[in-house]
Amino acid sequence: MEARSADRLHRMGSETTLQDTGEFSLIERITTGLPDDERVLVGPGDDAALLATPHGSVVVTTDVLVEGQHFRRDWSTAIDIGRKAAAASLADVAAMGGTATGLVVGFGAPADLPTSWALECTAGLREEAATVGACLIGGDVVQAPQVVLSVTALGDLGGRPPVLRSGARPGDVVAVAGRLGWSAAGLALLSRGFRSPKVLVDAHRFPEPPYAAGPDAAAAGATAMIDVSDGLIADVRHLAEASGVVIRLVTDGWEIPEPMQAAAAAYNIDPLEWMLTGGEDHALLATFPAGTPLPGEFRSIGTVEAGEPAVVVNDVVREADGGFRHFA
Amino acid sequence: MEARSADRLHRMGSETTLQDTGEFSLIERITTGLPDDERVLVGPGDDAALLATPHGSVVVTTDVLVEGQHFRRDWSTAIDIGRKAAAASLADVAAMGGTATGLVVGFGAPADLPTSWALECTAGLREEAATVGACLIGGDVVQAPQVVLSVTALGDLGGRPPVLRSGARPGDVVAVAGRLGWSAAGLALLSRGFRSPKVLVDAHRFPEPPYAAGPDAAAAGATAMIDVSDGLIADVRHLAEASGVVIRLVTDGWEIPEPMQAAAAAYNIDPLEWMLTGGEDHALLATFPAGTPLPGEFRSIGTVEAGEPAVVVNDVVREADGGFRHFA
Repeated sequence: MEARSADRLHRMGSETTLQDTGEFSLIERITTGLPDDERVLVGPGDDAALLATPHGSVVVTTDVLVEGQHFRRDWSTAIDIGRKAAAASLADVAAMGGTATGLVVGFGAPADLPTSWALECTAGLREEAATVGACLIGGDVVQAPQVVLSVTALGDLGGRPPVLRSGARPGDVVAVAGRLGWSAAGLALLSRGFRSPKVLVDAHRFPEPPYAAGPDAAAAGATAMIDVSDGLIADVRHLAEASGVVIRLVTDGWEIPEPMQAAAAAYNIDPLEWMLTGGEDHALLATFPAGTPLPGEFRSIGTVEAGEPAVVVNDVVREADGGFRHFA
Repeated sequence: MEARSADRLHRMGSETTLQDTGEFSLIERITTGLPDDERVLVGPGDDAALLATPHGSVVVTTDVLVEGQHFRRDWSTAIDIGRKAAAASLADVAAMGGTATGLVVGFGAPADLPTSWALECTAGLREEAATVGACLIGGDVVQAPQVVLSVTALGDLGGRPPVLRSGARPGDVVAVAGRLGWSAAGLALLSRGFRSPKVLVDAHRFPEPPYAAGPDAAAAGATAMIDVSDGLIADVRHLAEASGVVIRLVTDGWEIPEPMQAAAAAYNIDPLEWMLTGGEDHALLATFPAGTPLPGEFRSIGTVEAGEPAVVVNDVVREADGGFRHFA
């Protein structure tokens, strides 16, 4: 018995699970020591990778959506889920300052899935891709216990260098384009059994990322950029850590959209928390040198300062960010 | 009640499932009417797609492997499964005559998966990529009820045009490089609880595709090429249909590897059936103009003739091909 206990202890020690390790630490461990290949112009750790081709480069990024984890078939239509899956990858290309050109899609589904569902989901993927002028160029179809969508987007930088997470410099202005907290508010409504306000519920069903703001920011001289998919504070922290800076956000004067105000009041929730911590809207957060005229959709929400990487909101350091983490 | 019956009939009619539709018909329905975009140099229907970039092109292909469907964690190590997942996509690039340059990987897993398993699986992906000089350039990590691996490979054609499935012409020689039936034989052994002959079991655990044979075939003037992933007859049929030709295979003189002979004798199975119908070895099947000196690894196994697309083995038309189909 002692031998068995020792064996069990040994297994407990060596068999740390993903729940213990956590999403971000797992990624760090997977990507540590990845080959330093000269063709990998931008490797793991940014919104997308950049791979050298013989005569240029290609942006590439992949996102996986799993039924029950990222979407529910009883809350969203097949078209919405296709659009949402495409948007996650298309927004990553925009966050590099690029424009997506093509998608390849891995589609897993149970054998009893209605064929119409699969076709409508694909239509959603194509519709969302079409909003940026990209198209569906291939894929793989396999059987799986639940619907799984893996979407890889390829894109082009239009001759500009990529806008990385690591370029923010003290003195820069922090600006955001697109919605904050809408998807989280919609999810809160759906979780409580409500289907309205429709504009919020729809925002959870599929995001409307400000794709064009990505290349616009790059052209305007953005120093750093990230896609807000985990939540504003969580993603600002990613950018602050990659750049080695403090980012100070000031929420004074933020316009809280009317439907969000109403929903928040009904549930006694501070709508600012949705905006600060809600993910999946795929807003684009960028930093610009002070004095840069901000491109159309961007609004200033803060500043970059020197110091140990941190996120400060209204003079309070935010530790817990509420950002979504897999395996937690 | 009549109304409900009618309603039920209506639903039965409209709610055809993927099981009814089948993998290949689903793909056909998904890809019908895909936008005819000039940047899509090769679209759905071949081993990989080819997307124009501003100064060239990039090969791209994606494959999804689902636990329980494509692999079992009690039959294969994490490293083997990583290698197998990478091989599926890397072989698709080779089948276009290209060389893979980078992989992006979507990794889904349950929270209680040992972290060591995830790290070893990633090591397997990297090892397999390294065999062709490609590297892991990014990915996504998500929670899922079972392990899901989606691997997208990018590649380069080395300045040559892609070798498509559709280029076979009457009079061409049909040749194959790499193993046939080894993975199927290994699966048969594992299914019966055996772990030997090890060389066959290992062949099921991870394939050893003849990657270099892809660019070699392209350089030698191959008219068409396909990766044998579903099974020889099934994939020969894909090529015959894409090219609009009859392909005649003659098995006289095929060398049946010794371990396969032994295993087949033990189970009273014709080893030729493994070689004709077994998938997942990722051999490369190509057609060459008659008289072309076959590149190193290729051996002649048949000829191309004019006629309604069909596969003929030893003068017998093969209808049922035993090829793997999802949702069946």
